[in-house]
Amino acid sequence: METKAFDELFALLRENKLAELRNRLCEMNVVDIAEFLEENEPERMMLIFRILPKDISADVFSYLDSDYQTHIVNAATDKELTTLVDDLYLDDAVDFLEEVPANVVKRVLAHTDSETRALINSFLQYPDNSAGSIMTIEMVELHDRLTVDEAIKVIRETGVDKETIYTCYCINDNRKLIGTIPLRRLILSKGTDKVRDIMDDDEQLIYVNTLEDQEEVADIARKYDLLSVPVVDNEKRLVGIITIDDIVDIIEEENTEDLEKMALLHPSDNEYLKTGVFALAKNRIIWLLILMVSATFTGKIIENYENMLSAIAGLTACIPMLMDTGGNSGNQTSTLVIRGLALGEIEIKDYFKVLWKEFRVSLICGGILAAANIARMFVVGSAGGLSVFLVVSGAMFFAVVVAKAIGCTLPILAKLVHLDPALMAGPMITTIVDAVTLIIYFALASIFLL
Amino acid sequence: METKAFDELFALLRENKLAELRNRLCEMNVVDIAEFLEENEPERMMLIFRILPKDISADVFSYLDSDYQTHIVNAATDKELTTLVDDLYLDDAVDFLEEVPANVVKRVLAHTDSETRALINSFLQYPDNSAGSIMTIEMVELHDRLTVDEAIKVIRETGVDKETIYTCYCINDNRKLIGTIPLRRLILSKGTDKVRDIMDDDEQLIYVNTLEDQEEVADIARKYDLLSVPVVDNEKRLVGIITIDDIVDIIEEENTEDLEKMALLHPSDNEYLKTGVFALAKNRIIWLLILMVSATFTGKIIENYENMLSAIAGLTACIPMLMDTGGNSGNQTSTLVIRGLALGEIEIKDYFKVLWKEFRVSLICGGILAAANIARMFVVGSAGGLSVFLVVSGAMFFAVVVAKAIGCTLPILAKLVHLDPALMAGPMITTIVDAVTLIIYFALASIFLL
Repeated sequence: METKAFDELFALLRENKLAELRNRLCEMNVVDIAEFLEENEPERMMLIFRILPKDISADVFSYLDSDYQTHIVNAATDKELTTLVDDLYLDDAVDFLEEVPANVVKRVLAHTDSETRALINSFLQYPDNSAGSIMTIEMVELHDRLTVDEAIKVIRETGVDKETIYTCYCINDNRKLIGTIPLRRLILSKGTDKVRDIMDDDEQLIYVNTLEDQEEVADIARKYDLLSVPVVDNEKRLVGIITIDDIVDIIEEENTEDLEKMALLHPSDNEYLKTGVFALAKNRIIWLLILMVSATFTGKIIENYENMLSAIAGLTACIPMLMDTGGNSGNQTSTLVIRGLALGEIEIKDYFKVLWKEFRVSLICGGILAAANIARMFVVGSAGGLSVFLVVSGAMFFAVVVAKAIGCTLPILAKLVHLDPALMAGPMITTIVDAVTLIIYFALASIFLL
Repeated sequence: METKAFDELFALLRENKLAELRNRLCEMNVVDIAEFLEENEPERMMLIFRILPKDISADVFSYLDSDYQTHIVNAATDKELTTLVDDLYLDDAVDFLEEVPANVVKRVLAHTDSETRALINSFLQYPDNSAGSIMTIEMVELHDRLTVDEAIKVIRETGVDKETIYTCYCINDNRKLIGTIPLRRLILSKGTDKVRDIMDDDEQLIYVNTLEDQEEVADIARKYDLLSVPVVDNEKRLVGIITIDDIVDIIEEENTEDLEKMALLHPSDNEYLKTGVFALAKNRIIWLLILMVSATFTGKIIENYENMLSAIAGLTACIPMLMDTGGNSGNQTSTLVIRGLALGEIEIKDYFKVLWKEFRVSLICGGILAAANIARMFVVGSAGGLSVFLVVSGAMFFAVVVAKAIGCTLPILAKLVHLDPALMAGPMITTIVDAVTLIIYFALASIFLL
């Protein structure tokens, strides 16, 4: 559907029917207009951006990738720039300024009035990923002594510039947040009711501080099914709100970060295709080096047993399989535990419950794997005889049991000492489980085969 | 804060001050009430549930875990049950019925009127994870010929039972969805304007079919920043909506599923602590078995070179380190590519761009790792001499290069043949990279050390 629609738009552009193009664009969703813009050559993009009506161009701008935003800012006249920044929601303006080069920031700030500039600067100073850095100030504030009719009048008069009007925030004379009221309740209430009497107050009031981590904000919004979360300063004065569309983005961002940590990648905010080769290499090399050096342990263990490995045929050949099976078993467990911790389904106090469960699961999995392995070794005609097969299967059984214990212990231990449990995923588990597996394997081999 | 509040509630309960407890509960958020209920013994939970006012008890019920819901249904009288099901939003009722045992479903359906029963039954028949199975029918429908004032009157009269009133859906005489209008625009428009003239129609209309996958629904909501997504049947008649709170849940669910697949776990909808030991073992054993059997390749490769490994000291000891480093390198790449594919940042057509990028990254990472490895082997006094060290480092370099190529190729290839790219993560990559690494290692050793 979209591709066809774009084709028609390109045709209008080729035939220079700009008035008709403008009409067609005005009927489209701003997200789609942004997508269409990004399909064009830079100069042509600016041409199209200029024919957009003022009331939608800022919206379209906020959905463009930062590369395209930079291009538009560079191509815009001073006057266009001033209008654009004025029309952007403050949180979109801050988002955009955080992504673009410093010279673009400078030029944009030079073309905003001093009040907006001060506001933007104060936003840019909140720590990365704090509630303050992602909030918007375009919310509806209602004084608690208003009636419902008066409140609706206020919304009608001021609402058009607000990012959301669906949750209104009730403040007292000191601008302190004292309650919230959904627009829904205002619409459905009697016009003479007092806002104060129908708002959610006290115990129901949910808010975050400007310095709260964005992950915490997302957790609260998800838990309470909120459309927006109010942000207050240390005196509980309302300073902004965070809307659900930004919260959805935070959730995806946090999920990406967890995944990256689980692969022992240094988390990065940038899209893969836009990240340079050196930046990508830098994000990866530290942990690769640490893990490689840690593998010295497995090397030393094998060196100690080299005579035994040379003497008994078939022992060496099974090392990769044992290590992989142990690593995979531990990885499955740690993944489940890390995700459970992230979603709040597992807590530190559940450790022994988890360990007991994993122990029983590992007996089942280890038993099946050990039996299947003996069968496998017979079928493919592995080197060594039945006694070797039995030692390998025995080592596999214990490796699975130990791997699952390590896989559930390390993430919970990390949480206990306030490290990110996500670090205790596959690669980290594998490195530790490898060493333990080899120790078990060689111990069994020494006892039963020498 | 919450713990303290709960302490006071428990105290009221102990002193049997039920009226005061009720008042306190009424001031609390329904999510917190549900949390408090779950902290109580089953019999006491029912006692508290019964003192809740009717208008909030159904809401509280929808936030309870399915175990607790089952308990309440079992303990409820027939009359209580009828009231409860009537007060639940239809999507919450369906969610709940999908989770509880069959006998509970039977008893609940027996106590609903025939219209609701037919409706619930039709919902239960939508495929798992389809838009139809998660939608609600409590939306505001506006006829397109209404004026703004008439529309607001309709919302005032019917809105109280609707799950959201913030986006209203415009239908024509055939119940076909022809547009949407945000409540915001109704509130801010002139009372005499026609709904038809101010609604978003045609090209801006975003909707999904009842059979659409929930992941697709979440992608659309995220892309267009929607508060709710309309669901239509094959004749484009409006049959329901999916609200943002459910979409947030879907996003987390899909992320969990991806993570589970990446660890080669069979995805499961149930919380970890509530899943039985046998179910957990079943979700894990298949892939563990497949990967174990696949490791036969690495075993065979080593068997072929056992004489060389016995003859040259130090070669065997480096096998785990080489395999792990290759696996970790491939895992980093595949994680980034899988996530990029899931978020739409990487597409199949970007393959050569990704491969070229990964090739350059792998040269840097492989080079640094190889150099560091020689230093490490000297420092820890590894077995073998300089020539062995050089062969190990050379193999490491090539292993990293190949691993990163495999790590970006397999997920994109999976996408191309309509498999889930998430399957091509750590464990799968490791198994393949292990075999390739060993082949490179032994080839280099044969050439330079024999």
